[in-house]
Amino acid sequence: MSPLKIATDLPLRPELLAKLQDAVYPHQVTPAAKPLSSVLASGAANPLVKEADIVFGQPSVEDIQQATRLKWIAISSAGYTRYDTPEFKTWVQTRGIQVTNSSHVFAEPCAEHVFAFLLAQARQLPRALSLRCANTAPEWAGLRERSFCLEGQRVLILGYGTIGKRLIELLAPLRMPVEAFRRSPRPESGVSFVGPGELEEALGRADHVINILPDSPETRSFMNHHRFGLMKPGASFYNIGRGTTVDQEALATFLKSGHLASAWLDVTEPEPLPEGHPLWTIPECHITPHTAGGHGDEYGTLVNHFLRNFAAFLKNQPLQDRIY
Amino acid sequence: MSPLKIATDLPLRPELLAKLQDAVYPHQVTPAAKPLSSVLASGAANPLVKEADIVFGQPSVEDIQQATRLKWIAISSAGYTRYDTPEFKTWVQTRGIQVTNSSHVFAEPCAEHVFAFLLAQARQLPRALSLRCANTAPEWAGLRERSFCLEGQRVLILGYGTIGKRLIELLAPLRMPVEAFRRSPRPESGVSFVGPGELEEALGRADHVINILPDSPETRSFMNHHRFGLMKPGASFYNIGRGTTVDQEALATFLKSGHLASAWLDVTEPEPLPEGHPLWTIPECHITPHTAGGHGDEYGTLVNHFLRNFAAFLKNQPLQDRIY
Repeated sequence: MSPLKIATDLPLRPELLAKLQDAVYPHQVTPAAKPLSSVLASGAANPLVKEADIVFGQPSVEDIQQATRLKWIAISSAGYTRYDTPEFKTWVQTRGIQVTNSSHVFAEPCAEHVFAFLLAQARQLPRALSLRCANTAPEWAGLRERSFCLEGQRVLILGYGTIGKRLIELLAPLRMPVEAFRRSPRPESGVSFVGPGELEEALGRADHVINILPDSPETRSFMNHHRFGLMKPGASFYNIGRGTTVDQEALATFLKSGHLASAWLDVTEPEPLPEGHPLWTIPECHITPHTAGGHGDEYGTLVNHFLRNFAAFLKNQPLQDRIY
Repeated sequence: MSPLKIATDLPLRPELLAKLQDAVYPHQVTPAAKPLSSVLASGAANPLVKEADIVFGQPSVEDIQQATRLKWIAISSAGYTRYDTPEFKTWVQTRGIQVTNSSHVFAEPCAEHVFAFLLAQARQLPRALSLRCANTAPEWAGLRERSFCLEGQRVLILGYGTIGKRLIELLAPLRMPVEAFRRSPRPESGVSFVGPGELEEALGRADHVINILPDSPETRSFMNHHRFGLMKPGASFYNIGRGTTVDQEALATFLKSGHLASAWLDVTEPEPLPEGHPLWTIPECHITPHTAGGHGDEYGTLVNHFLRNFAAFLKNQPLQDRIY
């Protein structure tokens, strides 16, 4: 086999690029002239994709469709909206091109992030961290009264995948009944799946509804006025999927009315929300700026994930996080 | 057996008092004229203790020592500093009086509270919840870079008991090596104990030092300048035990120098800290006002815990959370 060309548009620091080049030798890494501006950005046009056997990063669909030697597209994010069309899927499948995403790189920090949200809600951290009062004050008694334990409470996960799977592992010691919604439920130990026909009832049972849905034409405004209205009074809503899957006006309405106890969002539409947006002003709405996947050396773990898959690719073994 | 007299100084609401009375019938509950002002308060003088077979709440040592029929003291808190003297221990043991605390009532919320602290530190929640910025801003990249996963990091627990045991269960899916310090280590599965001679090295290994020590003459200022100095640079310190066990000036020094990444305190000395105290002004110091044990209907769970033990007491079976 002649050396493979691996085109990447990731902004790898020199040591990390050197590590990648050493690890794949005698195959070759060709870094893009215009690398990505951040781990969430889309790639610019990259003429190197045309000649590449493998692309690693966020290649544009246009560049991919001009490639002639491509065998594997390694997407560096967990979300892959840009590539999630029937046309693209058919295009790569017809040509025998494998496509992977990087779910496993972001599953641990994302699962820990939403777990941090759940526990912060249970222990009322935003209020507790700002209240300076004596153990005899009425507001102190009120805060202790509002604090609760997660143990035994019910969870519904919307959009079950790598993150949901890890979250369920993390929640196990808390003995929380977990239900998970996906379009085509299939048996899996430790998870109770609900299909589209059972979703309405499941929304009414959960103390915590955790949205990890990806962005797609079918998921836009999935959590709408009707579905928020079905949620159990006093329940909380969490979103670490994509902002587009939530009707934010409806969410604000149900927070303001007190029907929902709180919302914890790592994603919004747009990001950040404009100044003066109602969700900024509702005290029960807590927003982090799309940092759920963050974990120190992200490019380092992305490269490690790629290298594990590259070893499998060379041996014609199955790739982790394969989507097509 | 003639009906037992159960004196309680807990401020039970009428339905809960009625529930307790019904459940113990034909034995009798005699509520104090001056009930406790809060779940953390000490009891006032209560002449009913003198005639009681059982006391449930926070009886004063003076009242207890005038009692003539006493067989069981059910303390309604987890901490029991007031009763933790060699003289008191001898006094009750000589008379065959059993003493229990309410550790199991507060273990779950306390373990969840400190876990909330750990995850909030990992996911940088205080900063993430206040930062409104775009995915391209340098402060956004910095925040993602500072965020981390708990998975695989090292924990040291100071003062291993019911809370520590539950915390270790909760942390299990995160595969965090946990060490626990106590004066007399004894084998227990899932825990690696360190004794006094190994503490210094253990402090230097941990990414997270969790203090659950009770207040006693031996634990005052246990975490002092020397021990904070032994902690690993960049580690975090957590306290849900008692404020007296920490030299707060030393803690402030090591936070200000950047040696410690953060402190998360549910207890301080005094509570609350006075206005202008250095720990209020250090951004990496996060304080909740002694709410770790809070969990909605606390008196309800205290009564349930008492009733389970009362059933055991009537059958001469071992009591849960027995301390003497």
